[in-house]
Amino acid sequence: MTGSHRSPAAALDRQMRALAEAARGAARVLSRAPTGRKDDALRAAAAAIGRRARAILAANRADVAAARKAGQTAAFLDRLALDPKRLDGMARSLLEVAALPDPVGEVTASWTRPNGLRVKKVRIPLGVVLMIYEARPNVTIEAAGLCVKSGNAAILRPGSDALRSSLALAEAFAEGLEKAGLPAAAAQVVPTADREASYALLALDDLIDLAIPRGGPSLIRSVAERSRVPVLKHYQGVCHLFLDETAPGEQAVALALNGKVQRPGVCNAVECLLVHRAAAARLLPAVGRALADAGVELRCDPTSLTVLRRAGVKAVPARPEDYGFEFLDKILAVRVVPDLDGALDHIARYGSLHTEAIVTRDLGNARRFEREVTASAVMVNASTRFNDGGELGLGAEIGISTTKLHAFGPMGLAELTTQKFVVEGEGHVRT
Amino acid sequence: MTGSHRSPAAALDRQMRALAEAARGAARVLSRAPTGRKDDALRAAAAAIGRRARAILAANRADVAAARKAGQTAAFLDRLALDPKRLDGMARSLLEVAALPDPVGEVTASWTRPNGLRVKKVRIPLGVVLMIYEARPNVTIEAAGLCVKSGNAAILRPGSDALRSSLALAEAFAEGLEKAGLPAAAAQVVPTADREASYALLALDDLIDLAIPRGGPSLIRSVAERSRVPVLKHYQGVCHLFLDETAPGEQAVALALNGKVQRPGVCNAVECLLVHRAAAARLLPAVGRALADAGVELRCDPTSLTVLRRAGVKAVPARPEDYGFEFLDKILAVRVVPDLDGALDHIARYGSLHTEAIVTRDLGNARRFEREVTASAVMVNASTRFNDGGELGLGAEIGISTTKLHAFGPMGLAELTTQKFVVEGEGHVRT
Repeated sequence: MTGSHRSPAAALDRQMRALAEAARGAARVLSRAPTGRKDDALRAAAAAIGRRARAILAANRADVAAARKAGQTAAFLDRLALDPKRLDGMARSLLEVAALPDPVGEVTASWTRPNGLRVKKVRIPLGVVLMIYEARPNVTIEAAGLCVKSGNAAILRPGSDALRSSLALAEAFAEGLEKAGLPAAAAQVVPTADREASYALLALDDLIDLAIPRGGPSLIRSVAERSRVPVLKHYQGVCHLFLDETAPGEQAVALALNGKVQRPGVCNAVECLLVHRAAAARLLPAVGRALADAGVELRCDPTSLTVLRRAGVKAVPARPEDYGFEFLDKILAVRVVPDLDGALDHIARYGSLHTEAIVTRDLGNARRFEREVTASAVMVNASTRFNDGGELGLGAEIGISTTKLHAFGPMGLAELTTQKFVVEGEGHVRT
Repeated sequence: MTGSHRSPAAALDRQMRALAEAARGAARVLSRAPTGRKDDALRAAAAAIGRRARAILAANRADVAAARKAGQTAAFLDRLALDPKRLDGMARSLLEVAALPDPVGEVTASWTRPNGLRVKKVRIPLGVVLMIYEARPNVTIEAAGLCVKSGNAAILRPGSDALRSSLALAEAFAEGLEKAGLPAAAAQVVPTADREASYALLALDDLIDLAIPRGGPSLIRSVAERSRVPVLKHYQGVCHLFLDETAPGEQAVALALNGKVQRPGVCNAVECLLVHRAAAARLLPAVGRALADAGVELRCDPTSLTVLRRAGVKAVPARPEDYGFEFLDKILAVRVVPDLDGALDHIARYGSLHTEAIVTRDLGNARRFEREVTASAVMVNASTRFNDGGELGLGAEIGISTTKLHAFGPMGLAELTTQKFVVEGEGHVRT
């Protein structure tokens, strides 16, 4: 027993429990903090990021150098690297969150029972939120800002390559909290790269109310397997665009291009194009040409391959594993389906519950697609890229949940709260 | 490899996966089923319970006999035992659910973005719901009815002592489903008492959308530890009633009696009475006498013990573990607290997030209690016993969630759904 308490694993468990207990204490203070004080903290944190820019950028340079040495890709290094403009963007994001309405205390519904009891549903913070994400320092500030504004304490666990940057950013954020008279423990970065730290935290269901893993398959799976804390996965987007037999050519080209090319590395980009058989000859050549001209590699089933090659558009045969795959790159799987049902079946099998879109002029097809597709967002004649908290009007988002529970789709401030019942009587008893 | 596939554990895993796959297939059908067909199924199931009463009661007698032989308590046997009246109650509960509005397809909010995009939030079923509960056969029917009405397939895992009864009830329910042209796999009872069956199911996060464990600490803990499927705990209620310095004596007596005595064995019963120091001499004798006269054992801190004994009310000293304990019996922990903050601290430490109540005439105390207590329901001058789906006006409930996520408090039909975004444009692309 004594031995195990002295072991490194036990020391890490104790350290993580202490960190989570500090978060729980801060959460109780935050849950009662008036909106003005929380907003003051975010504004002071934004100012502190500006003042501490030199130290933050130095920490980031060390992260980038280490990641480069470790052989990370250029895209990875790009997401990791900070510069004065990106720091400025983070500070601005805090000011934007400060300007949003506070969800805490909102009465979302109220009614009176026949016996005169008055019932209200009132938004309250979740409590302590654990974010586990990849090496993107901006998430540290965005998640801290959204959690604090919604009255939650945040425990922030960035990918280890971003640890120095995230700790430096968290120091600036803590300065803002303290200036506003709020506890610094309201937003803590886990101060170790030890992989076991996440698992130690995920065991603490007595202290942590929600875990949000945001990242690729292996991260998500390991969190879901280990966690006793409730998990909302922010998982991949294997998003489809379906062109039905009535789809207008121009719209088909525009939505395919926007979905695939505007920002190929994000979760609401299109990964697979489905085309109704009756429209393949009409639509595929123009759509394929536009995509190929934009540098997209088209991985095609035999029917679409024939159509595209006949039209002189460069395309390659798809392998089975190209369907249901999130490329996050200028690569697109293409498939001709016999009809709407074929598209619905393909999506039910290969989709990831993220975003699915149809281009159609047919009201019946639109209604069936809306009703029968299970995904956090179903788009009719609109780009998959609109599945985003800002674009849908929720304000800033902490991510896009692919777990159906609690919040399915973009999670803004309201989705970081829960609701309790408040019941008022005059001595009512149950008979 | 071959060996492991032939092992009993692998066979059980395969059996549970097959069962969950059948549920997933049924869920896809149910998610599109019109309301009328789901209601027909519930009504046909209610009729089938009546027709099959003899077989169901015979199965139940076998369950009860085995449980009695295994030495289960009288209270346990009472919850397990069925009779024609209880069967009739189950059938009626199905008719009541059939009469409730269908939550699926409800548009809970809609707005138009500045760019003209039309955004709707639409209720959809969760998919496949796994209920894990104790040996109460009525839960089998109530959960099946609520899941099917809300478009979900149910996998039902009763305590092993209720397996025969539950299988017989599920046969009747399946008959109702089939009469209405819905798949029998929409409500399946796990056909084995093997404890590992639950764990095998809880690993299937690709097929099951939600697990609801309803029961005591050990059941809840083992599910939370093992599950990869999202879990909403329906855990114990350590509910407090706080009498502040302004509490009217009559109301204090009425709410204490109703909370503790009306039905001591349920989760929204009061387990601990807190009394403001300044009101102890005024309130405790009458409240204590009423409770003692109703057969309640009062386990008291030194201050309340002195007051009660001085008034001639029978009381015993509390042990430390009596605070934060769910007695589910005619036993009540009693404690005098220095002030409202003392009550709030006690509740924050010992409460189970279920139901907390205050009796007060003071507006400020009422507002602080409402705001600062974290619990699924906060009662002001109303009995804790009102934390119940029917009493709050939600209709029938599948249980009371003590997990803050998704649904905190009573879960009715709406809480068995999630919401997706439906976005309609005219070829909108993101710039």
